[in-house]
Amino acid sequence: MPPFDQVFKRLFARVGGWAWIACIPLALIILATWGVAAHAQEELTAADVQVTLNNIWVLVCSFLVIFMNAGFAMVETGFCRQKNAVNVLTKNLIVFALATLAFWFIGFSLMFGANGNGWVGWGSFFLGGAPELYGLGPDGINLTKDTFFLFQVAFAGTAATIVSGAVAERIKFVDFLIFSVLLTAIAYPITGHWLWGGGWLADLGFHDFAGSTIVHSVGGWAALMGAAFLGPRMGKYNSDGQVNALPGHNLSIATLGCLILWLGWFGFNPGSQLAADSNVAYIAVTTNLGAAAGGVAATFVSWAMSGKPDLSMTINGILAGLVSVTAGCFVFGYAGAFVVGLIGGILVVFAVGFFDSIKIDDPVGATSVHLVCGIWGTLAVGLFANPNNFTQGGEGISGLFYGGGLGQLGLQILGILTVGLFTVVLSTIFWLVVKSVLGLRVSAEEEMKGLDIGEHGMEAYSGFLKDTSDMTGVM
Amino acid sequence: MPPFDQVFKRLFARVGGWAWIACIPLALIILATWGVAAHAQEELTAADVQVTLNNIWVLVCSFLVIFMNAGFAMVETGFCRQKNAVNVLTKNLIVFALATLAFWFIGFSLMFGANGNGWVGWGSFFLGGAPELYGLGPDGINLTKDTFFLFQVAFAGTAATIVSGAVAERIKFVDFLIFSVLLTAIAYPITGHWLWGGGWLADLGFHDFAGSTIVHSVGGWAALMGAAFLGPRMGKYNSDGQVNALPGHNLSIATLGCLILWLGWFGFNPGSQLAADSNVAYIAVTTNLGAAAGGVAATFVSWAMSGKPDLSMTINGILAGLVSVTAGCFVFGYAGAFVVGLIGGILVVFAVGFFDSIKIDDPVGATSVHLVCGIWGTLAVGLFANPNNFTQGGEGISGLFYGGGLGQLGLQILGILTVGLFTVVLSTIFWLVVKSVLGLRVSAEEEMKGLDIGEHGMEAYSGFLKDTSDMTGVM
Amino acid sequence: MPPFDQVFKRLFARVGGWAWIACIPLALIILATWGVAAHAQEELTAADVQVTLNNIWVLVCSFLVIFMNAGFAMVETGFCRQKNAVNVLTKNLIVFALATLAFWFIGFSLMFGANGNGWVGWGSFFLGGAPELYGLGPDGINLTKDTFFLFQVAFAGTAATIVSGAVAERIKFVDFLIFSVLLTAIAYPITGHWLWGGGWLADLGFHDFAGSTIVHSVGGWAALMGAAFLGPRMGKYNSDGQVNALPGHNLSIATLGCLILWLGWFGFNPGSQLAADSNVAYIAVTTNLGAAAGGVAATFVSWAMSGKPDLSMTINGILAGLVSVTAGCFVFGYAGAFVVGLIGGILVVFAVGFFDSIKIDDPVGATSVHLVCGIWGTLAVGLFANPNNFTQGGEGISGLFYGGGLGQLGLQILGILTVGLFTVVLSTIFWLVVKSVLGLRVSAEEEMKGLDIGEHGMEAYSGFLKDTSDMTGVM
Repeated sequence: MPPFDQVFKRLFARVGGWAWIACIPLALIILATWGVAAHAQEELTAADVQVTLNNIWVLVCSFLVIFMNAGFAMVETGFCRQKNAVNVLTKNLIVFALATLAFWFIGFSLMFGANGNGWVGWGSFFLGGAPELYGLGPDGINLTKDTFFLFQVAFAGTAATIVSGAVAERIKFVDFLIFSVLLTAIAYPITGHWLWGGGWLADLGFHDFAGSTIVHSVGGWAALMGAAFLGPRMGKYNSDGQVNALPGHNLSIATLGCLILWLGWFGFNPGSQLAADSNVAYIAVTTNLGAAAGGVAATFVSWAMSGKPDLSMTINGILAGLVSVTAGCFVFGYAGAFVVGLIGGILVVFAVGFFDSIKIDDPVGATSVHLVCGIWGTLAVGLFANPNNFTQGGEGISGLFYGGGLGQLGLQILGILTVGLFTVVLSTIFWLVVKSVLGLRVSAEEEMKGLDIGEHGMEAYSGFLKDTSDMTGVM
Repeated sequence: MPPFDQVFKRLFARVGGWAWIACIPLALIILATWGVAAHAQEELTAADVQVTLNNIWVLVCSFLVIFMNAGFAMVETGFCRQKNAVNVLTKNLIVFALATLAFWFIGFSLMFGANGNGWVGWGSFFLGGAPELYGLGPDGINLTKDTFFLFQVAFAGTAATIVSGAVAERIKFVDFLIFSVLLTAIAYPITGHWLWGGGWLADLGFHDFAGSTIVHSVGGWAALMGAAFLGPRMGKYNSDGQVNALPGHNLSIATLGCLILWLGWFGFNPGSQLAADSNVAYIAVTTNLGAAAGGVAATFVSWAMSGKPDLSMTINGILAGLVSVTAGCFVFGYAGAFVVGLIGGILVVFAVGFFDSIKIDDPVGATSVHLVCGIWGTLAVGLFANPNNFTQGGEGISGLFYGGGLGQLGLQILGILTVGLFTVVLSTIFWLVVKSVLGLRVSAEEEMKGLDIGEHGMEAYSGFLKDTSDMTGVM
Repeated sequence: MPPFDQVFKRLFARVGGWAWIACIPLALIILATWGVAAHAQEELTAADVQVTLNNIWVLVCSFLVIFMNAGFAMVETGFCRQKNAVNVLTKNLIVFALATLAFWFIGFSLMFGANGNGWVGWGSFFLGGAPELYGLGPDGINLTKDTFFLFQVAFAGTAATIVSGAVAERIKFVDFLIFSVLLTAIAYPITGHWLWGGGWLADLGFHDFAGSTIVHSVGGWAALMGAAFLGPRMGKYNSDGQVNALPGHNLSIATLGCLILWLGWFGFNPGSQLAADSNVAYIAVTTNLGAAAGGVAATFVSWAMSGKPDLSMTINGILAGLVSVTAGCFVFGYAGAFVVGLIGGILVVFAVGFFDSIKIDDPVGATSVHLVCGIWGTLAVGLFANPNNFTQGGEGISGLFYGGGLGQLGLQILGILTVGLFTVVLSTIFWLVVKSVLGLRVSAEEEMKGLDIGEHGMEAYSGFLKDTSDMTGVM
């Protein structure tokens, strides 16, 4: 065998001196490319982190929306009389538990199940399907199934809890439970599917970003029908047409509730972007401008009309502003959001008077806030949508005042009417069924003494002395 | 045409002089590699952003858990009588301040200090060590020391605040303060170390994801011993065995507190993942299902038993469901979480009756919620853990009902018993020391008139007229 | 010299026809580099995700700070008498709505508008400018305009809401509204510009990380002037110098408010980093240590002085600790934050006594908390700033006790005095203008009967029996 250096010498001679060196770069490139590819498989990409950030953001928003249950509970309870406080509290507490289960069982699938059609979703009940079976995935909404479910169930709970206030102080507890389950399991998911489940309203171009119609007016219609079927509370309307105020018992918690709802709306509206991007802060700002304008407007209008600033109107004005900007929080400019909220705040003051004039007794003004302003906000998209607002992508929706003509406005009216009609029909059926089976209303005696003792056998404020004059017939 | 090797031979011969040109690619590669490396040093990588996201997420969860102090304060105060409201509020407010200081001084090091052993951590007191000295870093829990501390101190505060409710309405204020400091500085961190500090229970494979045992049953055992040493409130149990309800004074704030706790639990359980990943939403959903199932179960069971739906049972049922799913929120399937929460909600109703039957007087049901359901939830991991739930990595824990046999169940029982025994022994020592030095219980006169006047010289609801009949001896 | 094509011909001849093969690697490198560059243009980078994360984090912090309005509302209302609850609630609810609009119209531009000078910002009113016109962008604060606005408007609202408590129970409602608008539109933004808008105090090196001076003492000075011009409530100070306690009506909601503020401060201080980085958790920990130390200190000091632990002092002590660490939460070490909070908690107890001794009647202690501890916290930066705390970048501020000499302390005093003087002068003008036009104080009869009936025509707790002895002249 030749010595080692001989082998090299011969080898080098054969390959033409040093020219083999030209192969080193090629080899290195192959090596480098290989390395990069291997690296890419192992390592986290920015897109991975963005997806996680989307989920974390929407998850935090879900928490805020779920916390809105505390806001509704405090506003509604505070606006009712102390003899019914336990009843209102229990309804508002159990309703999200029931909504969670009903939406998990059925509702989520009726709203997002991919095996449905334009009118209703279907399949993959009990959250049992793959993400794609609910329209999720890299090509659609890029969230995990769990994030999306939690956000959606929080919304479903909101629709149900709106009803609670309007029917307060005279409805049988069990009736409210049954109605809530039916609403969150069936009625809300179906109309929700029409838009957010990719149904026929979405195809046509109806725009309701965070649910002025899909959530608030659905809850509002259901509440209106409930209040109508129940009739007014004893002592609310005199036979001569006079309206008696039945003042709430705890405006401290009602105010707290309003501020909790304001907080929660920062999850409700910006979270509806379903992603963490540069637009969510924009949505938060329009939402906040709408709330502020609504609160100021309702305060000053009610002040001008009654001579004194009314705290309950400030509360409802803020909520009215929030509901009003919910549909268009992504398409309104700052000034548009301000004006829409302002008009919402004015509307709510007159709506409260209007419902009293037709003897629809809504103890907390839920119908005025959620139904009237839900409709107004949805209409407002057809008026104030400003196509210049879209900072990314953008659907280019133009309202009447921004050169869009009547097209979008017509679509908005179509959405309002069809969702409203469906909800009125279905909730009428629900209310009539529970009425015929169980009866809707507690006895007159129970109503006078308060539902807390009658329905729950306990009182909310044990140890305090109360004025019991309203517990003796005041017809 | 010359043969192929001839072509190469000629080629290589010819490039003689110019062969250096082959070095250009090599030079360029070196240059490019250099550039990329330099770039990498300057620029943010996706992994960097992921670490920041982990910290932000766990930080937000810490805030939510710290906010649980408001939830406990409202639930416990609302469930007590108005004459003791200031006392309960002060205890619940100061306890997190004390826990913060005690855990900063000592507790955090006993729980996570790297200079300890399997039984107790040690070293780097006052948060003075490097992250590695608390088991943090790229190879362990990839959080900053501050994020991890804040999350852990929030947990420690929770354990202490559980005790507050069970001993309410008759304990001396100073005793509670001392006990809380001892619990958060010494007892809680030691058993916490056994699992979360990488101690002997972690080595064996005991699983308690977010602390059904490590937090809730520890607080529950300490509460039970306190309630036992204190004895029942005056008027609670008649000599003929009759149990008198001493109703809470403010169910509005109690309900609010429950909803605040529900919110806080979304930090407690999903935050325990200690990272922002695709599993946190899953944990949030199982947590929510458990809460809903617990609330519905307790409502209907108590309704069936007493004839009327009891708001305080709905509140405790939701909390029971939450405590029950805390240990297994990451290993239960959806249905598992539902069933575990449901059973928790049923258990809490019977537990309240059970403790009354043995004359352990717990004014707010803390023992029933945190101890009984803490034990149940920990056991349930050994029954319902579903190895198919792990979407990433995964420890593959299998419960009895999912083919895992009795192994995991045995470990769970071991953890429950050892943590329980240690906590019972240590808290007995603590309670007996404060009892012998200071006396545990306020005077009978002070108890009748209320601790607010006796211990604090003030009342919670000045300006309201109260029913003082329970301030005159009712034995 | 041969023509160019000749050179090439000769070159190619020399490299032997096939030598061009050596160029393949070069071509591949160019191709590869090109590919990477193209990729980079299409794909999300880690830096993009980091910017989104910054925005999401600061947005979440904004929500927490906005929620502080609920905290202030509950603390201030709870500390007042029930006959004025509606009034305090309405003020605290409407004030953030007004602040939102005033800051949107004018304030944000006076604070951050890039067309101003070192004394005041200018231009781009109504949030109408490009981000650069408010000092935002890749080279400055890398947040979107909307994120930054929401965070800043939340801060502006805080300054206004501080005033509310000090002037409670005797100010005309409309006066408070006008003053709040002037404060948030003009006074707060101007001094805010001096530091956070890059004005002259920023140039000099004054350090107030999250606003002990810029927010809290500004609100505190305005509150002090208001309380001084209004004079004390009827019955507060006897002619013989005796101070009468006028106890708050609802310590449950006051305690809740304190815990909401504690939560909100986790947005206030860590959010002031204006980015999601590894320091925000550090700031959260120092903030929490300050709160805990302040609460414990105030509790024990008031306990030692009055013989009983006073819940209202625990509440104010926690808030005092929080205000105290606000300026230096980023530059204090853990021990520094603890000591600064501790001293804040002691100071607040004596400050409450001091203001009573000079007959400045502040029903909720806002001046003691926000003004006194705001000044203390700002001074403390000049004493306790520890240059070793900066884990990233870092401005290297050194306090007197950490080798920094008197330099920083002098700057801190300069900032306290100039901001204070300006706010005192401007708020004096504001108060005197509203006083001369509208009168500041409600009638003696209205004050006795309560502002709820007088100003709002409603009561907060309808249905409860109240002690009306304080509604009949008690001078």
